[in-house]
Amino acid sequence: MAASVLHDLLQPSSIAIVGASDRPRPDFIGGLRALGFKGDVYAVNPRYTEVLGLKCYPNLLQVPGPVDYVISAIPAAAVPAMIDDCAKKGVKVAHLYSARFAETGRPQDAELEMEVLRRARKGGVRVIGPNCMGLYRPGLGIGWSGDFPRQSGPIAMASQSSYAAHDLILLGTPRGMRFSKVVGYGNALDFNECDFLEYFTEDPETKVILMYVEGVKDGRRFLSGLRRAAKIKPVIIVKGGKGEAGARAAASHTASLAGSMQPWRAAVAQAGAIFADGLDEMVDYGISFSFIESISGPNVGISGTGGGPGVLAADQCEEAGLRVAPLPDEIRQELKSRGTDIWDWVGNPVDMTILGGGLAPGELLHMMGRNRQFDVLISIISDPHNRDRIGPFEGEAYLDRQGLSEIKEKPLLVVVPDKSLDIAELDLWTTEFLCDIRTRLVAARVPVYPTVARAARCARAVIDFYRQKQET
Amino acid sequence: MAASVLHDLLQPSSIAIVGASDRPRPDFIGGLRALGFKGDVYAVNPRYTEVLGLKCYPNLLQVPGPVDYVISAIPAAAVPAMIDDCAKKGVKVAHLYSARFAETGRPQDAELEMEVLRRARKGGVRVIGPNCMGLYRPGLGIGWSGDFPRQSGPIAMASQSSYAAHDLILLGTPRGMRFSKVVGYGNALDFNECDFLEYFTEDPETKVILMYVEGVKDGRRFLSGLRRAAKIKPVIIVKGGKGEAGARAAASHTASLAGSMQPWRAAVAQAGAIFADGLDEMVDYGISFSFIESISGPNVGISGTGGGPGVLAADQCEEAGLRVAPLPDEIRQELKSRGTDIWDWVGNPVDMTILGGGLAPGELLHMMGRNRQFDVLISIISDPHNRDRIGPFEGEAYLDRQGLSEIKEKPLLVVVPDKSLDIAELDLWTTEFLCDIRTRLVAARVPVYPTVARAARCARAVIDFYRQKQET
Repeated sequence: MAASVLHDLLQPSSIAIVGASDRPRPDFIGGLRALGFKGDVYAVNPRYTEVLGLKCYPNLLQVPGPVDYVISAIPAAAVPAMIDDCAKKGVKVAHLYSARFAETGRPQDAELEMEVLRRARKGGVRVIGPNCMGLYRPGLGIGWSGDFPRQSGPIAMASQSSYAAHDLILLGTPRGMRFSKVVGYGNALDFNECDFLEYFTEDPETKVILMYVEGVKDGRRFLSGLRRAAKIKPVIIVKGGKGEAGARAAASHTASLAGSMQPWRAAVAQAGAIFADGLDEMVDYGISFSFIESISGPNVGISGTGGGPGVLAADQCEEAGLRVAPLPDEIRQELKSRGTDIWDWVGNPVDMTILGGGLAPGELLHMMGRNRQFDVLISIISDPHNRDRIGPFEGEAYLDRQGLSEIKEKPLLVVVPDKSLDIAELDLWTTEFLCDIRTRLVAARVPVYPTVARAARCARAVIDFYRQKQET
Repeated sequence: MAASVLHDLLQPSSIAIVGASDRPRPDFIGGLRALGFKGDVYAVNPRYTEVLGLKCYPNLLQVPGPVDYVISAIPAAAVPAMIDDCAKKGVKVAHLYSARFAETGRPQDAELEMEVLRRARKGGVRVIGPNCMGLYRPGLGIGWSGDFPRQSGPIAMASQSSYAAHDLILLGTPRGMRFSKVVGYGNALDFNECDFLEYFTEDPETKVILMYVEGVKDGRRFLSGLRRAAKIKPVIIVKGGKGEAGARAAASHTASLAGSMQPWRAAVAQAGAIFADGLDEMVDYGISFSFIESISGPNVGISGTGGGPGVLAADQCEEAGLRVAPLPDEIRQELKSRGTDIWDWVGNPVDMTILGGGLAPGELLHMMGRNRQFDVLISIISDPHNRDRIGPFEGEAYLDRQGLSEIKEKPLLVVVPDKSLDIAELDLWTTEFLCDIRTRLVAARVPVYPTVARAARCARAVIDFYRQKQET
């Protein structure tokens, strides 16, 4: 039921920003404009007659047309009366950006929050928040920041922390994450994590579910929702407030009671969901499940590096639970018949530093892709040591030479390093080269990871998810 | 003895590159020029009369002056005769970049390698390699790449894989790593990991020792060297060839017999050395020990983020073994007496999203620094969500406002995220902002990490090292 309620509530035709101003933070009106919201937008604030080019109304009741959705940016003390106005105006849902409620730890603020809930219930107004950024839904042009992509995609996220959601969107965008809807829901006074989880489980636009959770209001309902969701779609969870200090921080952040970690982690894993250690890892899993259809087994072919880094790549794949099989005899024989002088020396991982003698870098990757002993391929783009060999900024030619432009035989994960840069190096060839490569791969819907360990961990998670799905 | 031998051998006054050419890979002559080597450089190759502006001699014996150090870039088969020339010429040490010896796995190549050793022993020539890049010693202007910094520093590295050393130098440079000497030693035919470890232990220029090791020739000598070294200097080890596939790759890389991992890890830890999982973590430890004098205890004050990321920061510090204490009462009282309205709400980590009311972001960090309950500070630079609040590209002003320009009270670790970038974003404000901040901090000898988890792990390692040192 919550699922269909949210389905209706989260597609408003008209939005009023109560507490609108000319120098807003966050800039909700700017976000709606940048993302291309097609519905009516109203500014409400008794102190202005115009805000950012919009006529400004002194209060909600003066707004001429109907208002489906309110964004409240007014101080906490003024929220109860505004909720009454929402009820009178027939507003369906109020997103309370307004904060300083229960999270301050002060009894009077917690009481004020309860008063908001009483009035909302009485007036039939549903509430998102308080103390949150609310909805990002690129398909409808709704969102709290114009920095977010306008393009939508298969990933949904419910995040108790809107700051975490914001970071995640910006972290994930260059790696190809695109979203169906993201909700930062803060103190979860009315709608909570269970409601969003159930909604995303049903949502046909959503293929992958991400959740950042500090406290859970109803553990039993959450776990049963998680079990149901994880049978259908991958669910990735980051838990905030794992330790003593984190739990204390969570309490003063969203007034959450973060439970003890060990039972949490066990219950989440048992429900079939995937635990991520932080937002970076959540991005890794998010792109993996949105780009990779499935991986049928753990046998990985690795190419693109060499020497010690190649040895470490093999180690990291094995540590993540992949199997790095020796190069099959068929491939060695093929190499031998072609007169390749390192046919008996080259292995898996393919050591790029020993390649030569007429063997193009990508050829072995393709051979492994065509060989039935391999289930998945990992290719590593190195910070190139020999720039002059590659030529000025030709990412496309490089990808061709690496054979990465046309890998179709098996799922492919690519490692492109993130690099700390000195300001003096900002114009450097390497940065542009690596960014160009990453952008081209992402455009081709290839998942890209900054390290081998992270790619390998994701490959394993994809294998496990689809295996588990087959079994149920 | 090996220590003093290496001390003498690794400061040559004259270097000959045997197998020099106009299109060399790697460009040893270019490296010596770029790094400013002051001694004599000779090119040797019977096919040329001039190479890269240097007169080229047909063989070593024709070189007019004395030659201390030879870099051999000729094919493996020609190396034994060249070693005889070295002996006749009085060359002290031959670095064999030449490869395709035992690492190919072919018996005749292993035999050739043994022949090289026999002739070297007979002629009194010491050997580095084969199959490696040899020496980077910025203080003398020696190195195999002009991309390396000319400035020297307190970090030494011995690396069985020169590719790993190369990656590490380039990874570490923008984060402030500077080196006394780095040796890529490949197949370790003559000098091996024990020799370099013992040398670095004695070396007054070296404060931190890094080692990338695949196989160890003499386990007992290595562990006793490690125990001795780790009492004096932090020793960070990355082990390549941990698993089955990695060990196989190590064999075909440097002909190493990578031992089983569990006993290795236990022995290394027992010897007091620090195990790093990969090169990224090795850079983390390297900058930590070169910039931080000591940390006296686990109590950390955290500032600079907020919301969910702040909660996760607290979790990650606790997971790494730090203690995230509540904000002490003295600080709350000081805040109250100054009329700060969130005096009872703000905590540790300091939630930047609730700051306001006349409290500058860095002030709480300084208060924690002055308070005896804290031993170490971690400050987190976020990808700024509100660019207009900061203004165009003013990293210095931002650091001032964060109070990071003058933290002297306690050791400070700063988190500056690495960000995957889309090529279209390359000119973006955020990239330059983060790079500018990182560069300024590194110039002030502040260690910078891409994530809180990695900063926290290093703080813990520094605490443990100095505690252990006090006890011995």
